[in-house]
Amino acid sequence: MSGPVVALSGGIGGAKLALGLARVLPPGALTVIANTGDDFEHFGLPISPDIDTLLYTLADLADPQQGWGRRDETWSFMETLRQLGGETWFALGDRDLALHAERSRRLAAGATLTEVTDQLRRSLGIASRILPMSDAPVRTRLRTDSGWLDFQDYFVRQRCEPVVREIRYAGAEAAAPSPAALAALADPALRAIVICPSNPLLSVGPMLAIPALRSAIVRCRAPVIAVSPLIGGRAVKGPTAKLMQELGLAVDAAEVARGYADLIDVFVADVADAGIAMPRGITLVTTPTLMSTLADRERLATEVLKRGLSPL
Amino acid sequence: MSGPVVALSGGIGGAKLALGLARVLPPGALTVIANTGDDFEHFGLPISPDIDTLLYTLADLADPQQGWGRRDETWSFMETLRQLGGETWFALGDRDLALHAERSRRLAAGATLTEVTDQLRRSLGIASRILPMSDAPVRTRLRTDSGWLDFQDYFVRQRCEPVVREIRYAGAEAAAPSPAALAALADPALRAIVICPSNPLLSVGPMLAIPALRSAIVRCRAPVIAVSPLIGGRAVKGPTAKLMQELGLAVDAAEVARGYADLIDVFVADVADAGIAMPRGITLVTTPTLMSTLADRERLATEVLKRGLSPL
Repeated sequence: MSGPVVALSGGIGGAKLALGLARVLPPGALTVIANTGDDFEHFGLPISPDIDTLLYTLADLADPQQGWGRRDETWSFMETLRQLGGETWFALGDRDLALHAERSRRLAAGATLTEVTDQLRRSLGIASRILPMSDAPVRTRLRTDSGWLDFQDYFVRQRCEPVVREIRYAGAEAAAPSPAALAALADPALRAIVICPSNPLLSVGPMLAIPALRSAIVRCRAPVIAVSPLIGGRAVKGPTAKLMQELGLAVDAAEVARGYADLIDVFVADVADAGIAMPRGITLVTTPTLMSTLADRERLATEVLKRGLSPL
Repeated sequence: MSGPVVALSGGIGGAKLALGLARVLPPGALTVIANTGDDFEHFGLPISPDIDTLLYTLADLADPQQGWGRRDETWSFMETLRQLGGETWFALGDRDLALHAERSRRLAAGATLTEVTDQLRRSLGIASRILPMSDAPVRTRLRTDSGWLDFQDYFVRQRCEPVVREIRYAGAEAAAPSPAALAALADPALRAIVICPSNPLLSVGPMLAIPALRSAIVRCRAPVIAVSPLIGGRAVKGPTAKLMQELGLAVDAAEVARGYADLIDVFVADVADAGIAMPRGITLVTTPTLMSTLADRERLATEVLKRGLSPL
């Protein structure tokens, strides 16, 4: 299983598989392209939730309970903010804040998000590359019955409760992919592209909405393998199922595969979804996909790579 | 000693007397106008060091050793920032960060610095009003042998080591005073204006460089009392003496009094400076001015008010 691999990932669920891939591949063989449609500014600080979750997960610093944030976190900032009557709907740990501060400083000094992220992952001792999908802002917005919401307003402040009628990835059409992401996808030695089991609408959707990123994946000769985020029609975590239903989609793994039909060669679904119909030309692989333990992550990563690297 | 009193203050030294004044005056009788020439943005957060020191000091939250920052502080943010290779020359505690975040949020929402500061002091249970000298940015800059430096670069990062040739208060000429500060100075019931023992060049200088603030003090019929920051030609803390010398001034209390000559009625100097020459029309009062204990602060505050309120 040598040769570079590119993974497309959102936050928690995707990061689990990314960690598995990082552990079963040789050091440095993995490049993770991260969704930045969730990025926002809070208190003047630039926050990239999916990149941050990937950084903490791959650095083995992630909080194992929550999936986001750091496990060695302290909370004096939030506690004081509450005492001051400040906005506390987005949890920011004291150590997590340092990441945002350093990102803020380096962006203000003229570095790109790609450069800043690369510096951060090196500081944290991560061998895999983590790249934003774009250095330009792309912002996922959701139309609900009470109007358009910014992503974090919907996702964190309102806990995904509003019914979503439409999703837009503002800025995606005009955004150029991160040059490093394009280079990774154009690498003739590339062995596979893995679409992690992230929310197809909120995490993978923004990436595929960037025209040059989508076309680079379509053009790529390496196999593209997507892993289903749904198991038996239910999401492991997060609003994937609820969103699909609200948008009139079938709530099952087959629907996810159809959404990726023009991109993928292999679709990895859970054993609970054995026998689902695949679009023409796509190979279905079923295997246990629930990643509770580190061993689960490594096993699924190995399986995904094996299927991707074998003749189709 | 009833009736409103206005104090002009910088950070640590001035805040000590401001605390004494707050404690000997009836609750709410004191308004402190704070220097904002030291304000800067760090990591995208707006920081107002002198306002912050006043807030913490008057809320009885100040670190008694350092004078700045909070005594109940934790340092996870700085520790992590150091691990990330970030800029750690300006110490920001985890709890202190919450103040800057809340300020950032409220300024971004359109509040003025006067409004934000008033909300913060209320949240912290401070009865005295704390007002920025202006809602417009005024930035103290220092010309050294290696060029112009921003204030915090000079003061914190370079520990006041560069030799200063010239000081400018960028933006002061065009800045309007905080409307609340002007209103406090125009209050016909005003009993006294106290210029705290702050650095005359770095802390009081920026305030007096705002034309409408200076003229409001000149016009005011209440007595103006300045307290010397120098004792026997030495500063209690900070670069006052070094700076005065570098700028070719005499390094003594009399020089400070001359600098305030067109504004003040009474000059309070330490007993060590008994007999110094005063400009015409200014009454010299000598009393112990070193404020080591809380009792010292209250005693000096009482003395200053007594001298200011008695017939000159």
